[in-house]
Amino acid sequence: MTIRIGIMGYGNLGKGVEYAITQNPDTILAAVFTRRNPDTVKPVTANVPVYSASDILSHKDEIDVLILCGGSRSDLPVQTPEMAAAFNVVDSFDTHANIPMHFANVDKAAVSGGKVGIISIGWDPGLFSLMRLYGNVCLPEGKDYTFWGKGVSQGHSDAIRRVKGVKNGKQYTIPVDSALERIRSGETPELTTREKHTRECFVVPEEGADLKQIENDIKNMPNYFSDYDTTVHFITEEELERDHSGIPHGGFVIRNGKTGADSANTHVMEFSLKLDSNPEFTSSVLVAFARAAYRLNSEGVSGCKTIFDIPPAYLSPKSHSELISTML
Amino acid sequence: MTIRIGIMGYGNLGKGVEYAITQNPDTILAAVFTRRNPDTVKPVTANVPVYSASDILSHKDEIDVLILCGGSRSDLPVQTPEMAAAFNVVDSFDTHANIPMHFANVDKAAVSGGKVGIISIGWDPGLFSLMRLYGNVCLPEGKDYTFWGKGVSQGHSDAIRRVKGVKNGKQYTIPVDSALERIRSGETPELTTREKHTRECFVVPEEGADLKQIENDIKNMPNYFSDYDTTVHFITEEELERDHSGIPHGGFVIRNGKTGADSANTHVMEFSLKLDSNPEFTSSVLVAFARAAYRLNSEGVSGCKTIFDIPPAYLSPKSHSELISTML
Repeated sequence: MTIRIGIMGYGNLGKGVEYAITQNPDTILAAVFTRRNPDTVKPVTANVPVYSASDILSHKDEIDVLILCGGSRSDLPVQTPEMAAAFNVVDSFDTHANIPMHFANVDKAAVSGGKVGIISIGWDPGLFSLMRLYGNVCLPEGKDYTFWGKGVSQGHSDAIRRVKGVKNGKQYTIPVDSALERIRSGETPELTTREKHTRECFVVPEEGADLKQIENDIKNMPNYFSDYDTTVHFITEEELERDHSGIPHGGFVIRNGKTGADSANTHVMEFSLKLDSNPEFTSSVLVAFARAAYRLNSEGVSGCKTIFDIPPAYLSPKSHSELISTML
Repeated sequence: MTIRIGIMGYGNLGKGVEYAITQNPDTILAAVFTRRNPDTVKPVTANVPVYSASDILSHKDEIDVLILCGGSRSDLPVQTPEMAAAFNVVDSFDTHANIPMHFANVDKAAVSGGKVGIISIGWDPGLFSLMRLYGNVCLPEGKDYTFWGKGVSQGHSDAIRRVKGVKNGKQYTIPVDSALERIRSGETPELTTREKHTRECFVVPEEGADLKQIENDIKNMPNYFSDYDTTVHFITEEELERDHSGIPHGGFVIRNGKTGADSANTHVMEFSLKLDSNPEFTSSVLVAFARAAYRLNSEGVSGCKTIFDIPPAYLSPKSHSELISTML
């Protein structure tokens, strides 16, 4: 059994999916769909056809699962429901506040088409959500914490680049170690935004720009930086390219809870990720859930699913008895 | 909807289940079953009936899920299949090598009775198994590591107490920090038994015993200690009682993997537990899976299940839409 995967959108995430497929022997890349001119898109994999996104329905029979690699702001809210009517789909929709609406839209389309749509897959939402759920059910009397980083925030990097006098820049979100340590030791503090994360900016100024003013503008930017302790470093374009071209990320989900007589015993559950490439890791998770989408649909399931709805065994290429004997 | 839970076996695990039930408002403790004289067993919860284990079938209609709190060596291999024919059951069977056989036995009984039996629940097997699975599917090109401790190993503590001249004792399994650090940094070393864990023993000698001989006998005991760096401390019975009466445990599951072009990017997934009370945490996990057993069976599912087969949402008392809006 080979699962024929289609990629919609060939950016960082789409390329990551392509690499992930090579690591999963039960999957093949059947086609790439793009809104650009297909002639300009060259997949790494040999002999993979590239089609125009507008022609996708004519390739319906060539694809078992379509992985949607667009953005959460404008692509996925439209694409995922549209595609779920015709394909099993997986997306990484990550606008937390809009997930309930997205779920409803995808569910309606997927049910009508008899397909499975798995949404909001990746690490947050995704694996981190799972860990929050397992934490809550295993330790009902407790508190959970999510920390992000150390990693690059695209939104904050974009915000820096909009500051007057800034030519280029990159922002790292960094968890505060002392807060992590308090929580790991079993404390359950109420933490302010400032106590949880710091922000570190690497800025390439335009020639002759007012550095003091740039630093001031960044540090006082509402929503993005003013609630944080922020550090600004000025560097050259070459240094930015050399030292900050990666897209690392990661973070921590910690659940602290109490059990027993008088809640005398404390337990700490911690999950963490340290990722060299945020999009490549997300892609790799997407491919595992594509397998689950295919299998569920093969069993007659349809509708929208989240990471909370997928029995873990459906993610693995191993048989059930192999899983039990090797991993349980 | 209230889930009526029965506890079979009122030791550390059974008591832990009783406390966990008080933290889960959709569950109540309906009855305790014991092989001892029921008059000698006094649950903490008021007005809970205690029945003889041999009468359990006459209480079939009072119990939605029976949590089996016996031992893996002789109790569960017999009890779980026997009970699964009449009750939804959950157990913590932890003899890894025998899980396939146990699964087959429980499956046959549960299918015949139209019930759900969830086996091998806890943290290893259990949450650690889950993390191994999620690690493998998210990073197919990688390696995983499981470390246990710091925590009390009952088997090794029992082994110490069988040594000539030893009155009492307790053994802690401790992961080697430097090995953990190497793996966290992205290395994928092949580690020997000795490189992964050390063993620390606290021993109360009998009066006039030969301490050198005891230390020697422990350190050279095959299977249990000879493959490890072992430290032996001699203490008094009072010190043992004061400083070592807890049953802490925990451990780490780490998956290291590579993605992308030329596998250039490294990712580290880490899950850890730090538990003040091994049995109370295990009990708390058992109760969450009792909820899942009840729900699955209410939907008409029957047969044996493992932690790999349960959609995470079934573990939570929250509705699906609440889960999506609060945890995803």
